[in-house]
Amino acid sequence: MVKKVHSSIGHHYIVEASGCDPKVIGSVEKVQQILVKAAEIAGAQVWSVSIHKFPPKGVSGVIVISESHISTHTWPEYGYGALDIYTCGNRVDPEKAAFYAVEAFGASTSHITEITRGIEEGDRIYYHSLITWEEDFAGNK
Amino acid sequence: MVKKVHSSIGHHYIVEASGCDPKVIGSVEKVQQILVKAAEIAGAQVWSVSIHKFPPKGVSGVIVISESHISTHTWPEYGYGALDIYTCGNRVDPEKAAFYAVEAFGASTSHITEITRGIEEGDRIYYHSLITWEEDFAGNK
Repeated sequence: MVKKVHSSIGHHYIVEASGCDPKVIGSVEKVQQILVKAAEIAGAQVWSVSIHKFPPKGVSGVIVISESHISTHTWPEYGYGALDIYTCGNRVDPEKAAFYAVEAFGASTSHITEITRGIEEGDRIYYHSLITWEEDFAGNK
Repeated sequence: MVKKVHSSIGHHYIVEASGCDPKVIGSVEKVQQILVKAAEIAGAQVWSVSIHKFPPKGVSGVIVISESHISTHTWPEYGYGALDIYTCGNRVDPEKAAFYAVEAFGASTSHITEITRGIEEGDRIYYHSLITWEEDFAGNK
């Protein structure tokens, strides 16, 4: 009998998206559509959605997906959006979801750190590893 | 007249908490209490709370606070919890909140990366900086 392993490994994309379209990242409706679509693209099941407007112009949103979440906090006045996409398991594709969301925000460039979370170093002690890069979206500008 | 500046700077604590008490991190009620209390300790205003049980034993929770969020995803079967505390503005103290939550989880040790998000490098291009360390909680074990 094969024991089912519930892996603690997660992939968390931390993104600073610059040059975003203020009309997109300032709209609760558009941000919600983009995050829900990103969850679909990641192959994740949506459990709850919570999107709010925050002063003066920003949008703050979190979607809880199975074992993990997608979130954004935006500053349309700066064309800036902070985006997190955190997924667990092998059936999901967080990178595809992150790139979709950043392009949908209309970003011209982004600074990304991918964190691999929940790595066991032995004896049930867990850590994460990091890799950082820049990504340009020439098609958007 | 002084123009009010809405800073994009945020402080995001990414925590892998090990040696946690399964009875605490496996309980939706306890995890909710801890995250809400962490938000209070941070000095953040709670906008929404979404906490779920996920198979086989874990708890997945996100609290949206003003401009940012607190989240956790736990694996009681491994004594492991992944915790995020992301706050914006100068009136909040995310480190205090992170340490409170990790101790309340009963963790013996944690691997932490603090990410300073939304730093402008000029010309409305934003990036983040990182610092990683280990923190032991001798009182918990």
